[in-house]
Amino acid sequence: MLDLVTGQQIVIDVGSTKGNLLVAVADHPRRSRFVAVHPMAGTEYSGPDAAVRGLFEGKTLVVCDAEASDPAAVAAVEALFRALPMRVLHLGAADHDLHTAYVSHISHLTSFALALTVLEKEQRGEQRIFDLAGGGFASTVRLAKSAPATWVPIFRQNRENVLDVLDEHLHQLQKLRELLAGEDYAGLTTQLAHANEIRKIIP
Amino acid sequence: MLDLVTGQQIVIDVGSTKGNLLVAVADHPRRSRFVAVHPMAGTEYSGPDAAVRGLFEGKTLVVCDAEASDPAAVAAVEALFRALPMRVLHLGAADHDLHTAYVSHISHLTSFALALTVLEKEQRGEQRIFDLAGGGFASTVRLAKSAPATWVPIFRQNRENVLDVLDEHLHQLQKLRELLAGEDYAGLTTQLAHANEIRKIIP
Repeated sequence: MLDLVTGQQIVIDVGSTKGNLLVAVADHPRRSRFVAVHPMAGTEYSGPDAAVRGLFEGKTLVVCDAEASDPAAVAAVEALFRALPMRVLHLGAADHDLHTAYVSHISHLTSFALALTVLEKEQRGEQRIFDLAGGGFASTVRLAKSAPATWVPIFRQNRENVLDVLDEHLHQLQKLRELLAGEDYAGLTTQLAHANEIRKIIP
Repeated sequence: MLDLVTGQQIVIDVGSTKGNLLVAVADHPRRSRFVAVHPMAGTEYSGPDAAVRGLFEGKTLVVCDAEASDPAAVAAVEALFRALPMRVLHLGAADHDLHTAYVSHISHLTSFALALTVLEKEQRGEQRIFDLAGGGFASTVRLAKSAPATWVPIFRQNRENVLDVLDEHLHQLQKLRELLAGEDYAGLTTQLAHANEIRKIIP
C-alpha cells in the first residue's frame, strides 16, 4: 500500500499487534504516511454481520510510534477516531504489544482453555452445561467463540509477550492449586483478597 | 434449624455446594422438611446493596436429592421459585457438585488467577490497564471481584471436583503453551477451532 500512496494520502493500520509491522515498514520511503493505531474495542464475533452500533464510543484508540508519522497525518487520523468519539492514547509499539498481552491476549487464551476444559469434561453432558451455566461461566467463556483466523496470527506476532504472561498465569493457577490441595484456606483467602484489588483498576 | 421445625415448616437451603451438607442432615429425624436447592444466578457482588431486580428471572433452580424431602415440601419450594419465574431442574447432590465445578467454580478460579497475573505483571502500570482494557478483559476478570468469604468455603466444600477440573484446565493451558512455544500454528488453529464448539452450548 505504501508503494502506491502520495504525500496526500494516509495508510491507517488498525491491527492488534504493532512490533513486527512497524519494523517491516521502518525504512519505507513513505513511512511518514503510515499511521499505526489500535482501536481497543471488539467482540468475539467477526465479519460484517458482527457490526455493533456504538462499539467504539468512549473506548481508547492507541496511536503507536506517532513520532515516525507526519504530524498532519496523525492529526487527521486522530480527528477521525475522536469523532466516534474515542479517547486517544499514545504508546510505543513495544509497550503496546506488552500491555495488550496482559489485558487482552491472555484473557483470550484462558477463555479458549476454559472452553476446552469444559468440553473435555462434559463430553456427554452438554445439555447439563446449558442448564447450569450462569452469567459467570458465559462471561468467562465468551471469548472462546473468537475466530482462530483472528487469534492465531495475534498469538504468533506477539508470541514472546504472550508466553511470558501465560507463564505467570500458569504460576498463579499452580499457587492457588497448591493452597487448595494443601487445605491452606487462610492462604487461599489472602490470595483471593489480593485478586480483589483488580476492583481498583476495573471498577 | 431442623431441630426447631415442625411438620408444618420447611427449611430451604440455597447454598452453592450440596454433597457435605446433605450427608450432615441425612439422619436427622426432620430430614424430610429440608429442601436443598441452588438458584443458578448471581453477580460478583454480595450483600443487600448488591441486589439486582430480575436476577433470577428465567434462570435455573436446581433441586437436589428431592426424593429425600416430603413431596409437599418440594412442591411448595418449587412453586415459590417458579413464581420468579425460574425453571426447575432435579439433580443428585453429587452430580450438582460435579457440574457446578465445571460451569461455575473453575470460572471463578481462572478469573482470580487472571487478576493476580495482571496485578503481578502490571505493578506500576495500573492506569495503563485501565486505559487499554476492553470488554474482553473486563468480562473475564469480573469474577475476581467476588468475595473470598463466599468462595473459599465453596472451593473447600467442593475441593475434590475443583482440583479435578483445575488439573484438566492446567493441562489444556499447557497444551496451548506448547503449541505456541513450538510454533505449531496449525495445531493451535485446530485447538482454538475445537474451543469454538462452546458456541453449541453457550449460544
